Amino acid sequence: MKWDLADIAYPGRYSSRGQGIMGSFIDSSLSLLAKQTHPVISLAMGCPGPDAFPLEDVRRITTEIMEHEGPVALNYGPTEGDPLLRQSLLEAEAEATGLDIDPDCLIVTSGGMQGLDLVAKLLVNPGDPVVAELPSYSNGLATLHNYEGNVLQVSLDDQGLSVEECRRYFDRRGARPKLFYVIPNFQNPSGITMSLRRRLELLDLARSYEAIVLEDDPYGDLRFEGRALPSLFALDEGKGTVIAVRTFSKTFSPGLRVGWILAPKNVVTKMIAAKQSMDTCTNVVGQKIVAQLMAQGVMSRHILRLRHEYRQKRDLMLQALERHFGSLGGTSWTRPEGGFFLWMTFPEPTDAEKLFPVALEQGVAFIPGPAFTVQGGLRNAGRLCFTYPLLTEIDEAIRRLRYSYGLWASFGVEGAAAR
Amino acid sequence: MKWDLADIAYPGRYSSRGQGIMGSFIDSSLSLLAKQTHPVISLAMGCPGPDAFPLEDVRRITTEIMEHEGPVALNYGPTEGDPLLRQSLLEAEAEATGLDIDPDCLIVTSGGMQGLDLVAKLLVNPGDPVVAELPSYSNGLATLHNYEGNVLQVSLDDQGLSVEECRRYFDRRGARPKLFYVIPNFQNPSGITMSLRRRLELLDLARSYEAIVLEDDPYGDLRFEGRALPSLFALDEGKGTVIAVRTFSKTFSPGLRVGWILAPKNVVTKMIAAKQSMDTCTNVVGQKIVAQLMAQGVMSRHILRLRHEYRQKRDLMLQALERHFGSLGGTSWTRPEGGFFLWMTFPEPTDAEKLFPVALEQGVAFIPGPAFTVQGGLRNAGRLCFTYPLLTEIDEAIRRLRYSYGLWASFGVEGAAAR
Repeated sequence: MKWDLADIAYPGRYSSRGQGIMGSFIDSSLSLLAKQTHPVISLAMGCPGPDAFPLEDVRRITTEIMEHEGPVALNYGPTEGDPLLRQSLLEAEAEATGLDIDPDCLIVTSGGMQGLDLVAKLLVNPGDPVVAELPSYSNGLATLHNYEGNVLQVSLDDQGLSVEECRRYFDRRGARPKLFYVIPNFQNPSGITMSLRRRLELLDLARSYEAIVLEDDPYGDLRFEGRALPSLFALDEGKGTVIAVRTFSKTFSPGLRVGWILAPKNVVTKMIAAKQSMDTCTNVVGQKIVAQLMAQGVMSRHILRLRHEYRQKRDLMLQALERHFGSLGGTSWTRPEGGFFLWMTFPEPTDAEKLFPVALEQGVAFIPGPAFTVQGGLRNAGRLCFTYPLLTEIDEAIRRLRYSYGLWASFGVEGAAAR
Repeated sequence: MKWDLADIAYPGRYSSRGQGIMGSFIDSSLSLLAKQTHPVISLAMGCPGPDAFPLEDVRRITTEIMEHEGPVALNYGPTEGDPLLRQSLLEAEAEATGLDIDPDCLIVTSGGMQGLDLVAKLLVNPGDPVVAELPSYSNGLATLHNYEGNVLQVSLDDQGLSVEECRRYFDRRGARPKLFYVIPNFQNPSGITMSLRRRLELLDLARSYEAIVLEDDPYGDLRFEGRALPSLFALDEGKGTVIAVRTFSKTFSPGLRVGWILAPKNVVTKMIAAKQSMDTCTNVVGQKIVAQLMAQGVMSRHILRLRHEYRQKRDLMLQALERHFGSLGGTSWTRPEGGFFLWMTFPEPTDAEKLFPVALEQGVAFIPGPAFTVQGGLRNAGRLCFTYPLLTEIDEAIRRLRYSYGLWASFGVEGAAAR
């Protein structure tokens, strides 16, 4: 029996948040790429490289888990997270920053994304003003939007979020924001790192508004050069201004969906309650794999290896950009000190959303600028991920992008497709 | 440096949903039990038995996945789910029910819990009337409540939800509900199965209100006796009245967090967008393990084995209840034809929340009745899970419960603790 469930709509039956739900061009790009019949080099989604996993360690550890604690790993775990993993995370934080954090201030989440979702759920009322960077991580923006926050994106300069611009905006209106959503290290998508001074200014401003700073830091451990800056969470010195969202998706594996949050105990208590009716607990096998990778010292060695490999990839992409785009006036790109991405600006009046299908046809994918905005804009820019392509693919990817740009600039989308 | 983040509150900074967030006594019981220093037999959380996992198959399959597709399994997957898993789920549905469902009508979720969360997020506006059974699954109720739905619980009789009572309630008020949340098979917590006639009546009533039926069916495959009834989703014959939430948490593993939803294509499209900003995708390793268990025929054999073992456990619990409580007037319990739970009613005026700590002290845990309500009530009842304890523990658990009841009835909580 074949039913046609394709044309059924629910007019008037969605909630107002459901009516306006916003997805992610980035995440959808994965299914889009899978549908292509010709080989495409992806600079689109922010993925670790296919050669960047400690497969043998994961295989061995998974076998050990099944042998020694299989019935526990396959059953429900505590909502706040696997005990060994939580302990390892607190120890790692203490070792890296000297902070001795109460275990009740940490909850394990299903990736960093669920961390953002939990914060928005607990804090954002429909219509609440929330500040994000322009550009910013699509899914982070979507979460704030999907809880019906009024997302205001404020531009970045080379020191990070323009705190002065935020202050002027709100002071002029006699208003104040509920939340600042920032990615201080090797920002997604711009690659820019917020300076120490700017971090301190942001904390001051947030405190003056009694606003919370949501610090999303997936990339901080992946610094290739220069000195690491203290996190906003550390700079806050326990005042409760900052909720820190962390993840293993960039330093180890996105597919296992393991992240964590540091926040005041009262907030974590509410997060545990909220998570119970969101997904009960984070997948236990994934948590135990991460806990063992940490406990056995594999994780820290692995991160050292990634820093080395991703630095090489970044360097290759910068060289390729210089080679293929260096003589094209009006083009520029950022030079991130770590992370996954750089931000490419094409000559005006490029429309990156129209360049995208041309580039896809030519065998290279990236994410157009408007995906990093709530309102649109940044049309002549795009995000390039340098970690996912193989070393041997990077120059070719940028060559294809340059060729696509030439096709698009000369013939437009239809003209390029016809050639 | 030790910071005291324990006493920081966010007065006036939570969202209204965050302010009223409702957790789960059931999920919290897991951490509570872990803190006990004496041995406790748990009839509390709805867990598969510790001896109920196909460990050797999982170990072997996980090794194969790491060897053959490790880099894919550890990276992001499509938000809608692993392609092989989605295909296997649709084939299994076709085989079991004859339904040929469009692949665009299925999304994989992080357990059944996220399925409920997605439905509530897309459909429930603050204040919307939503109907649930009385008693009903705590976390399902919490999700509806946490999106600020106005949850109305309507009592069950031995045929399931009292559809006539729903009709009278809404017609009297000239109102109509947005959603009916039901667990038709071996209901959590009552163990009651909704009759075929009642299913058809519910669909009629829902259609008359243009309401959606959210069919939560974690237990349907675990029928020990009697004939399987068609799902509400199947009985709806493609009209789009029903959204079906399914999971492997009871038939295989809760710890892997893999479930799925069947719904009209337009709804699934919105769910994909919503999930992108909730947790990006379901953990890929877990999905691939489930997909291989299905493809290799392990899953169907495993479910046959569970039916046999859980039936034995149910029978033992029914015998133990007869033995230890049979002569206690005012006591009754349900006799489920499958699933995980039975519902125990103690003599009036028992307060199960006060009996709970006495029982815990005596070495047995269960879930008191009020946990299955939004407003409280059902104080003289509780849920007993018969699948988690070992065969050899069941009689002892019920003996301890009877002894605890005697202590509590004779001496009250303090008196019992003093003994």
